[in-house]
Amino acid sequence: MKKRVFSGARPTGSQHLGNYLGAIQNYVSLQEEYDCIYCIVDYHALTTMEGREAVKTLQPNIREMALDWLAAGLDPERSAIFVQSHVPEVAELHTILSMNTPLNWLMRVPTFKDKVKQQPENVNYGLLGYPVLMTSDIVLYKAEVVPVGEDQLAHLELAREIVRRFNYLYGDTFPEPQAKLAHIPLIVGLDGVQKMSKQLNNHIELAATPEETETRIMTAFTDPARKFRRDPGHPEACNVFALHQALKVVHADELAKACRNAEIGCVECKRKLAQEINVMLAPFRERRMELAGRSSYVDSVLKEGADRVRRIAQRTMEEVRRNMGLV
Amino acid sequence: MKKRVFSGARPTGSQHLGNYLGAIQNYVSLQEEYDCIYCIVDYHALTTMEGREAVKTLQPNIREMALDWLAAGLDPERSAIFVQSHVPEVAELHTILSMNTPLNWLMRVPTFKDKVKQQPENVNYGLLGYPVLMTSDIVLYKAEVVPVGEDQLAHLELAREIVRRFNYLYGDTFPEPQAKLAHIPLIVGLDGVQKMSKQLNNHIELAATPEETETRIMTAFTDPARKFRRDPGHPEACNVFALHQALKVVHADELAKACRNAEIGCVECKRKLAQEINVMLAPFRERRMELAGRSSYVDSVLKEGADRVRRIAQRTMEEVRRNMGLV
Repeated sequence: MKKRVFSGARPTGSQHLGNYLGAIQNYVSLQEEYDCIYCIVDYHALTTMEGREAVKTLQPNIREMALDWLAAGLDPERSAIFVQSHVPEVAELHTILSMNTPLNWLMRVPTFKDKVKQQPENVNYGLLGYPVLMTSDIVLYKAEVVPVGEDQLAHLELAREIVRRFNYLYGDTFPEPQAKLAHIPLIVGLDGVQKMSKQLNNHIELAATPEETETRIMTAFTDPARKFRRDPGHPEACNVFALHQALKVVHADELAKACRNAEIGCVECKRKLAQEINVMLAPFRERRMELAGRSSYVDSVLKEGADRVRRIAQRTMEEVRRNMGLV
Repeated sequence: MKKRVFSGARPTGSQHLGNYLGAIQNYVSLQEEYDCIYCIVDYHALTTMEGREAVKTLQPNIREMALDWLAAGLDPERSAIFVQSHVPEVAELHTILSMNTPLNWLMRVPTFKDKVKQQPENVNYGLLGYPVLMTSDIVLYKAEVVPVGEDQLAHLELAREIVRRFNYLYGDTFPEPQAKLAHIPLIVGLDGVQKMSKQLNNHIELAATPEETETRIMTAFTDPARKFRRDPGHPEACNVFALHQALKVVHADELAKACRNAEIGCVECKRKLAQEINVMLAPFRERRMELAGRSSYVDSVLKEGADRVRRIAQRTMEEVRRNMGLV
């Protein structure tokens, strides 16, 4: 029996290179070893969206993201790919676990405290309860393994505490999910400063055309100390070189040397990067075009995924209701 | 079209005279004018229960309470009587509304602050969210009227605020529930000090036998200033007289006079009270015996009630999901 992996991601629409190198590649490779459940977490998205116009983006974003996942190699034959709210049992478990989670555990979560500082006027009850809903996502499917980056470790530890408390009070019900620490490289955006992100518009969209990709990359900031073509470069301080490295290009070392010796200029280096990305993404882009052309393919994948995991969810909830005295 | 009433009560098991005079009588009479939905709120009960032994009381308590309701005249042909968790849509709505309820609205609720003082070691996330779940209970069925006592007015006002905010952000979806202030007499228990309550064991159980009822009433505290039979009594300070009054006994005024003139003693007065209660409850007790004898009658009422309101709940949730961009 393969162990079960759960991971969730907010519906952010069409994905970019940072998503790909950070999460999607990892999702694809986990399929070899695990029984994978990949969830597009629309309820979580609601904690930071407000108003009818804002939420209108949800459905297109879900479909674009799912399409990218599928084109990148998530295989619906092996993995369940679905939308969180399509399995309403998660809301039931969330409601039940909310009665079992001490308030001060949630108040102490560092990311919550950060949010309160960032958006004090828009802190809702659900934002505080984010770890409770996240725990429900994982344990509803009795997932044993959760791939996480460093920044999510605290949330997973809280999920484990919630599970331990529940199991102690109501009898063994859920496995304690284990963190699988993924080395997620920090992909800096084209501005050379911040993490690649759609919101900051410093990203390279996976589904862009080769021409768009090159145009955008040519705008990228490089080593700020290298003013002229003849100046020696500092690859270790260069955003474009970091992307060459993240792509695991064979000749990255040579490129670094050429940059340090001013044998290659930034324009040429960026053009090379655009080529590398376009070559790497060519099969993805072809497949994406093909899948996008199949009418309602994404919807049917999401529906099948939800149907499959819902059976697990229903079994879990029968057990939870029994242990909690609700039946 | 009759307006729709919603009311919920925690499953506290077999009901006592305080429940009857305070809530059940009102429930029964509301049936004449309204389309009534009466809910046994088991999720809410979980906010203050902990551990496997504690929750084992839930199922028997639900059935005893429902049996008392039915015997007292709640009519499943006219009113829907059901258990909260049997309509899992309420958890879905609760999860969605939790993303739409500002945290500080909940932090300010006086009853929450009281609970934190009373049981600081057992304050869970769900306790803080009690008004969100209560709001979900009401608006899931688009109830327009909620019978409340004074102590619940603040919660209902919060429910109205949550509704207004939702309707403003996502378009008109829910009616703003109106409070129907019920004059709920404060029924003091046999100790003459505290509100009648099972937990305090100062109660008169509706389903008790006439003998048990009399035995318990004979232990009741009366006017503490009346030491001897010959002393004049003070009905206005007497717990037993308050019960005579609450029962709306025809001769209460005469009784008060006789007490003040020391023409009647406390023992006789209590015996009268026991008689009055036994007479009043005789049809209830007969009916309760009869219903208890019908195998699985209560279960089938609760199931039909849940089926009926679930259709309303499903329609509401379709609308909510659409307005929130979840479909």
